[in-house]
This record gives sequence, structure tokens and C-alpha cells, in this order.
Amino acid sequence: MEEVGFLGLGIMGKAMAMNLLRHGFKVTVWNRTLSRCDELVEHGASVAKTPAAVVKKCKYTIAMLSDPSAALSVVFDKDGVLEEICSGKGYIDMSTVDADTSSKISEAITSKGGSFLEAPVSGSKKPAEDGQLVILAAGEKALYEEAIPAFDVMGKKSFFLGQVGNGAKMKLVVNMIMGSMLNAFSEGLVLADRSGLNPQTLLDVLDLGGIANPMFRMKGPTMIQNSYSPAFPLKHQQKDMRLALALGDENAVSMPVAAAANEAFKKARSMGLGDLDFSAVFEAVKGPEKSS
Amino acid sequence: MEEVGFLGLGIMGKAMAMNLLRHGFKVTVWNRTLSRCDELVEHGASVAKTPAAVVKKCKYTIAMLSDPSAALSVVFDKDGVLEEICSGKGYIDMSTVDADTSSKISEAITSKGGSFLEAPVSGSKKPAEDGQLVILAAGEKALYEEAIPAFDVMGKKSFFLGQVGNGAKMKLVVNMIMGSMLNAFSEGLVLADRSGLNPQTLLDVLDLGGIANPMFRMKGPTMIQNSYSPAFPLKHQQKDMRLALALGDENAVSMPVAAAANEAFKKARSMGLGDLDFSAVFEAVKGPEKSS
Amino acid sequence: MEEVGFLGLGIMGKAMAMNLLRHGFKVTVWNRTLSRCDELVEHGASVAKTPAAVVKKCKYTIAMLSDPSAALSVVFDKDGVLEEICSGKGYIDMSTVDADTSSKISEAITSKGGSFLEAPVSGSKKPAEDGQLVILAAGEKALYEEAIPAFDVMGKKSFFLGQVGNGAKMKLVVNMIMGSMLNAFSEGLVLADRSGLNPQTLLDVLDLGGIANPMFRMKGPTMIQNSYSPAFPLKHQQKDMRLALALGDENAVSMPVAAAANEAFKKARSMGLGDLDFSAVFEAVKGPEKSS
Amino acid sequence: MEEVGFLGLGIMGKAMAMNLLRHGFKVTVWNRTLSRCDELVEHGASVAKTPAAVVKKCKYTIAMLSDPSAALSVVFDKDGVLEEICSGKGYIDMSTVDADTSSKISEAITSKGGSFLEAPVSGSKKPAEDGQLVILAAGEKALYEEAIPAFDVMGKKSFFLGQVGNGAKMKLVVNMIMGSMLNAFSEGLVLADRSGLNPQTLLDVLDLGGIANPMFRMKGPTMIQNSYSPAFPLKHQQKDMRLALALGDENAVSMPVAAAANEAFKKARSMGLGDLDFSAVFEAVKGPEKSS
Repeated sequence: MEEVGFLGLGIMGKAMAMNLLRHGFKVTVWNRTLSRCDELVEHGASVAKTPAAVVKKCKYTIAMLSDPSAALSVVFDKDGVLEEICSGKGYIDMSTVDADTSSKISEAITSKGGSFLEAPVSGSKKPAEDGQLVILAAGEKALYEEAIPAFDVMGKKSFFLGQVGNGAKMKLVVNMIMGSMLNAFSEGLVLADRSGLNPQTLLDVLDLGGIANPMFRMKGPTMIQNSYSPAFPLKHQQKDMRLALALGDENAVSMPVAAAANEAFKKARSMGLGDLDFSAVFEAVKGPEKSS
Repeated sequence: MEEVGFLGLGIMGKAMAMNLLRHGFKVTVWNRTLSRCDELVEHGASVAKTPAAVVKKCKYTIAMLSDPSAALSVVFDKDGVLEEICSGKGYIDMSTVDADTSSKISEAITSKGGSFLEAPVSGSKKPAEDGQLVILAAGEKALYEEAIPAFDVMGKKSFFLGQVGNGAKMKLVVNMIMGSMLNAFSEGLVLADRSGLNPQTLLDVLDLGGIANPMFRMKGPTMIQNSYSPAFPLKHQQKDMRLALALGDENAVSMPVAAAANEAFKKARSMGLGDLDFSAVFEAVKGPEKSS
Repeated sequence: MEEVGFLGLGIMGKAMAMNLLRHGFKVTVWNRTLSRCDELVEHGASVAKTPAAVVKKCKYTIAMLSDPSAALSVVFDKDGVLEEICSGKGYIDMSTVDADTSSKISEAITSKGGSFLEAPVSGSKKPAEDGQLVILAAGEKALYEEAIPAFDVMGKKSFFLGQVGNGAKMKLVVNMIMGSMLNAFSEGLVLADRSGLNPQTLLDVLDLGGIANPMFRMKGPTMIQNSYSPAFPLKHQQKDMRLALALGDENAVSMPVAAAANEAFKKARSMGLGDLDFSAVFEAVKGPEKSS
Repeated sequence: MEEVGFLGLGIMGKAMAMNLLRHGFKVTVWNRTLSRCDELVEHGASVAKTPAAVVKKCKYTIAMLSDPSAALSVVFDKDGVLEEICSGKGYIDMSTVDADTSSKISEAITSKGGSFLEAPVSGSKKPAEDGQLVILAAGEKALYEEAIPAFDVMGKKSFFLGQVGNGAKMKLVVNMIMGSMLNAFSEGLVLADRSGLNPQTLLDVLDLGGIANPMFRMKGPTMIQNSYSPAFPLKHQQKDMRLALALGDENAVSMPVAAAANEAFKKARSMGLGDLDFSAVFEAVKGPEKSS
């Protein structure tokens, strides 16, 4: 894999494609708004006018779209991936989509003879720029192995998780744990504050102990300032909690802590906080102020 | 503070007193079983025959006892601390005790004119040996400041938290967050397993992301082997959850995630797992196997 | 409404149709297994060979099918209701189906000019035989009013709840409260038992107080005998909890008690109890016995 | 038992003593404010000037005091019960007190040779007047049997529950179930409202079904008017939830639904609703209104 197509040059996609270029890959890019291709071209990328044109030109095509509908659109619409995908070509969708969307794309690609890999990532803008993403791949094992050189420059680690859908499931499990932890953290901050302890000191103590982690370190200081600029919107976190609980429902897994955390995120949504950062669940944990 | 008394040479106390000796403090030790003093004497410590004798000799005395009853005993019993404590002397209790015990000791010491500091620690054997404890001090501010040189060689960081009781409260808040996190982690491991994902892979993915932390890294591998050799017994963790929830009750703080986690620890106790490591809550989360 | 068609003569439908006959309605019945019509014929019913034939003959047709697929089948399949429904005719589906199924049937009926009412019932075999059902109707108001004479003989009370879907929603809300109550009851029984109180005495005390209700009275004695012959299967109760929580999710309603109850029902499912009565959640609350 | 002493003529005690008089018992009454005895005297009661004088005169003495401190006071203070209790005399405390208070009184009475029964009641003013209380007795079985004629005129039913403390425990279990039910009911009302259903209709539907109960019937209409005149203050209900959960903790009983309900009551307390009726937990379930 020395030459790859790349569909989608949003914040994430642009950084990922740039890393491919920097490490000597020949990259043919496409983006709905073509002007976003310019910077990549300056660094040596070629441009194609449609997803189909990218796939026609390249043996391997990577996609990094913003949501399920965009991911479906570049495949199924006119001039889409399906028009040119065929035996011998691989399609790697690194967008974060639900398992159903992923399966739909997988079936369409493979029915045309192409091979398919879903490969959602863990990590946001900075890790994307630094080539430090964690890649959760699932689908065609042979394609995964061919893609390793590309994954190695975009991420610090990639995993092959088996059948299509497992990448999405792994993200749900991780995000569920994350959401419960953020609730536990919020409860601790409120308890400290109302018990006469300094929340900032709690942050300092936590950061020196066995449960110190980057999320507490990053979110804590802004939470105690009631500042929730959205890195990951609360409504998306709540959606992931819901989907993780639904996955548990399918498999008869009882998860009372995650369920309690989910209800707190729903409470936050009912307070109109869905578009803020997911750490705004802290406001729901604090609850309304006692009227004087 | 160049010369200190040290009461209690259990696993923790011995390591802490040794660090004081290594860094040039003159240390007079006492232990109920006097033979445990020998190793310290080889490294330059003096020995006194009773807690009272230690306090008589030293301006500052540190205690590191195993539990509340031992902490009360060295102070109130015959030949105890109270017999010699007086104005101009300081007593620093680094044992982990409840707020009531701490208050009782504090009142007795100060009523004799002595000054008092509670200073429970976060960290176990290894950090104690390495001088890497986290020290949660509360009580007499002036004594805290005098004790800093000693804290600096026993710990990597010390905090002054205000009035007596705040050290114990801070430990409860931290342990409550820890207990909820361990439940979230357990639920994630069960969900992964029952959804067809490899739990070991989940551990690897978690360790590369924003919620990576030493506890997941240390407990995860033993949990998926169902191995729960007790580092921190489950019944003690559940007791701390209960006390943290009681602290929340006093202050009208609603903590549904901690409450759900507490019920899971209780379930584990009802399964007879109270003496195993607190990570054995994983067994309660997994639940009984489906009968065939 | 003096003449009605009746589709579906299962346990419920047969009892309901019989009540119509007893009170002087002319009833034309159909059932997939036609022999089940015999008893009704003895009491004066006419028989038609297909759902379409029933609708052709009758101005009003009532359906009481076992599940959503049966409810869809009698409408959409060959010789189904759609072939003959038209302006001036009414179709009343009293089956318990989800809101989507109900909407699908509603749209098909009304697009042909027919009028539609969903009217799920609360109550099982005995109330059906005794004409003591509670009827939760929604859809076409005029049709509801025309159907009142029939509802009056099948039920003790009918409600008109507005637009199609509201009948199903009302059932979910009621069943959610019921499921949480059954958990609270189970927890109380376990707590009584483990605290040295006689569970039977708890039943007696409860039955004399402000929270006495028919469900506790009926389920309590069998629960303390660990007997769970299925009146309402646990897996269906858990499904209703899930759907009620999903309805809450849509509307940002935080319901931590229902969520905790749902996780207990899931735990029961994971123990292989899904086909037993929903009161078998008691087994999940009791948890595994402590190993000796 | 034809002649009894009666200590405490509050709302409950007065009604209970009156029932004894009406049914032919000879009653000697005492109350801290003696003027409250007048009405009883008009109906034939004798008056004594101290609790000790009552006990001296009567073989059996019943107490109905307002709280634990009053219950302790009539026994232990000067001129109290202890001064005259002796072998051959019985003391029946029907006040609602905690298990510790009850044990303390029990030990004092029995150490003097007297026999003791705790007998808290379920039911408030109206049932007391109507002789419809439910009596939860525990302690000396022989005394219970002698007291049955009195219990029969004060209550509709009495239970003998074994050792002292069991009466208090039984009340906790009942109140715990009640508190969880009220939460389930509140969640259902909010879900109905936000899903476009009429909460009043939900009340009507519930009242016709298998979970119909006097509490829903009585509290529902006031809750949907946001009216919470205190019949049973929320802070007392929350205290009973806490004590019931503590009882579960002692016995390793996991009760996640009660725990979730308790957190909702705590949330209500943090909103300043502790002195309102316990049905005000509805406000905590509704949560803050979404800001526009």
C-alpha cells in the first residue's frame, strides 16, 4: 500500500491524509467542498472530482466522513464508491458510524467483489495530527494487513477485532466506561465541595494516585469553572450510553452503574445541556440550587 | 524537625521510618512487638519502651497504626501518648481512621496543650518504601508546616486540608470515585465479553486512551483471570462507599452512580467475596451463570 | 354498532367475542384455525372465511391478535382487511402491538378511506371473561364513540387517549410502574427475610396498609414459594421496561428507579429466567446463595 | 387486661385511649400537659400525676409518645416508669422509635423484673380514631397475648414479630417499599406528561388495574397539582430509606431500586423540599425546567 485514495478532509481527515503524505504515500484526495483539498495539494496530493474517480484510480481508498449519512452518501450516491469498486480493490471506512450503517456499506462493497474494513478511531484532532490515533479495525483480515503501513503513520496502535461491527462495539464499550467514570468524578467533585473540601485539591490528590487519568486531568479544571466548551457533545455521549445499554440488553448483561450514569446524562439533556461538552453532566449531578 | 518519634512499625510504618533515617532524621521508635524495632536500630534508630517515653523524649511524634483501636490505644492507654504530651509538643497521626476517632484523639491531645495533625496517606507498601506517598493532612496548620521536611521524605506530595476530619473525608471521596470506576470497568469487561469482543483487547484499547489509569492497568489482567488476591479487601471498599454515601446524606448530595456501585459491592459481599480484593466485584457484575 | 366482525379467537378474543354475543350483538367471527369458531357459533355467531370477508360483511371489525406480526398479517396479506376496508367502515385493533405497527396499520386503513382505532387492553383472561377489561383507545374519535356500546360489554372502563400510538404508550407507562413496584416488593421481601422477619408476615402487613394492591396480594404468596408459573413472561416485562425507558430517552426524561429495575430484569434474563413469570425477578434480587 | 395505664395523649394517643374507654376498659391517663386529660376524664378516665403513679396503679401501662426522646424521658426521668415497674407489671411502648431506643427501654424494664413489648403502629389519625391501626408488636410473647383485648379495640390487626427491634424493622421494610413505589409512580407521571399523555388519565387507568392502591389514589391528584402539604415529611421518609438501606448493608442485601429511590429523595432534600410531604420527590423527578 503505497498509493491510497482519501475521501473526506474534515478536521480529522485532513490531518490523517497529511500524515500519509508526510510519510511518502501517494495520496489522491476528494472532498465535497473541493477547496479544502488545496492545502493537501501543496503537500503533493492529487485531486479527483468524485469518490468514484478516486476508487477508479486507487487500489485502496480510505474514508473519513462526519457521520453515517455522509458515509452512506459517498458510497451509494451517483458518482459514489460503488460505481468503481471491484474485485482487487479495498475500501476502508474510518468514520464513526453505527453497526447497521457499517454492515450496509460492507455488504454493498463486498457484493461488488471489493474488500471492506471498518476502522473507527479513538482520539480527536491533536492525536490525528500527531499520528497518535488508536484504530479499531474489523472486517476483511487480509485488507487489514495490507493497510498496516498506513495505519502505522496515522495511529500509534491498531487493532483487528474480527467481524464487521466489532469496531463500533468496541468504541461503545469504551465510551460507556468513560461516561460512567465522568459521572463518578462529578459526584466526587460535588461531594467534596458540599463537605467543605476544596475541589481543586481533590483534582490534585486524584492526579497523584492510582486512578489518575488524562480525562480527569483535562476536564476537571474546566468543570470546576462551569465551562463546557464542547469537545464531545453531551447528547452524543448520551447516545453512546444508550447504544451500549442496548447492546447489553441484546446480550442480557445487567449494568446498573452505566444505567444510573445514563439517567444522569438524560437529566442533563432535559436541562438543555445536550450541545455542551459531555462534562456538563456535572451540572445535572449538582442539581438545582436550593431556593433560599 | 530533625528529631522525631515514630510509633508503629508495621509494613507501612517501618518503610516510612526507614526513609526518615535515610534522610538524616534522628528517629526514636516504638512498636508493640519490640523486636520489629531491630532493623531500624541497625540503621541508626533509638528505641523507647513506651509511647509515653517516645513523646517525653521527642518534640514531634508520628504514629502509623493499623486501625482505629490501635490508634486510640497508644494515646489513651497506660504509658500512652497522653501521659507526656504537653504544650510545645506535636503529635501527627498518619493512620487511616474514621473522623470520629480522629476527633477524639485531637481533643485529648489539644486539651493537654499539645498540637495535633491527622495525616492519612494514599498509597500502599511500594510507595511507602519509595517515599512516594500522598499525604492528606488536617488539623494544626503550624504543625503541618513544621512537619513538611518529614513529609517530603515520606511522600511525593502533601496537602493541608484544614480542620481535623478533612483528611478522612478526602480519602472517602477518592475511594468512592475509585469504587464507581471499578464497577464501570467491570461492566465494560462483561459487556465486551458477552458481545464477542476480547476482554484483553479492551484492556489494551483502554490503556491507550483518555481514561487510561494505573488501576485499570493493574487490576484488569488479574480480573480477567478471576484472580482476586486481596490488596484492598472488598469489604473495606464497600465500607468506604457506605461512609461516603453517608457523608453525602449529611450534606444532601444525591449520588446515584455511587449508590448503584455500592449495591454491587454489597451483592459481592452477599456472595461471600468480602475478604477478596475489591476487584472481585467483577464476579457480582458477571452474575451467576445461566443454568443450562 | 349492533353488528360487528371479530378477528382472532385466542384466549382473549374468544372471551371478548362471547361477551358481545351475550349482550345481543350480532357477531361475525374469523380465526386462522377455523375450528376455534365452533363454540362461538353455538352461541349465535356467524363465520366468515377470511378477514376480507368479515370486513365486507360488517361495518365495524374488531381484531384481537396475539402479536404484531399476526396483527399485520390479517391486514396486509391476501384476503386481508385492506382488500375490503373503505369509506364508512371502521377497524378497531385491540391487540397489544408497538406504536410502529399500530401506525403502519392506521396509515393503510385510512389511506383506503376507512377509520381506525387502536384499543389495547389492560387485564388478562379472567377480566376478559368477566367483561372487566380496561380499554386504552386512540385514533379516530368518532369511531371511538360509535364503539362505546361494544367497549361497555367487554370492559369496565374505556379511555380515549388521542392520536394513534397513545394507547401503546399508556400501556408502557403502566407496565413500567408495575415493573419498578415488583422490584421494590422483591427487595423488601429479601430484606425482611435476611433481617429475621417472616416474609409471609410482611405480606400480611402490606395488605393492610396504604400500599396494598392486587399485584402484591397475588404474586407475594407464590414468590415466597419460588413458584413462577408464567402469567406475564419476564422477558416481555423487560421488553416493556426497555421500551418505556426508550420513550423516556426520546423525551429526555430521567428515570433512575425504572432504570435500576430494568437492570434487575436483565440480570434475571441472564440467569435464564426470561420465560418464567415476571415475578421471577425476585430470584435476581435474592442473588446467588453465598457459598459455604 | 381490663385496667390499663396510658401515657401520652397526643393526636394518636388520645384517639387510642378513647377507644379503650369506649370498649369498657378502665383507663388511667397521664400527659405532660395535664389539661389534655380533661376530655378523657369526661369519658370516664382516671388521671395520675406522674408516669410512676400510673405504673404503680396499673398492672399494664401503654405509652404513645411523639419521639424517641419523649419515650426515653417517661421511662428514665424522675417520677418515671422505672421507679414503679416491677415483676408482674407490663409496659407496652407503641411509640415509633428506632431499634436502639427500644432496646434501651426494654433492658431497663426487664432489669427491674417488668415485662416489655414494643408495638409501633402503621396508620395515622383517622385509623387511630376508627380503631383501624395495624400493630407491629415484638418483645415478651406472654405480654402480647395479655394485650390482645386492648390491641383488638385500637387496631384492626396486630402482629407478634418476635424479639424487640423487629417491630421497628418491619416498619422500615414497609416504608422502603413505599418510598420506591412513590418514585416509580413519580417517574410514570413525568413520562406520561412529557410523552403527550394526560397524567390524570394515567391516574384513572392505574386505579382500575392490578397495581391500584390507596397511596396512588390519595397522593396522585395532589401531586399533579404540585401540592405537598406534609402528611409524612419527606426528610422522615428519606431517613427511613437510609435506615432500611443500612439494615440491608448489615445483612449484605443488595437493593439497587431502593438505593436509586433514596438518591432521588436526597436530591429533593437538596432542593429544599425536606419539610414538604414525601410525595414532593415528584419535583426532584421532574427536575429543573429547561431554560428557554
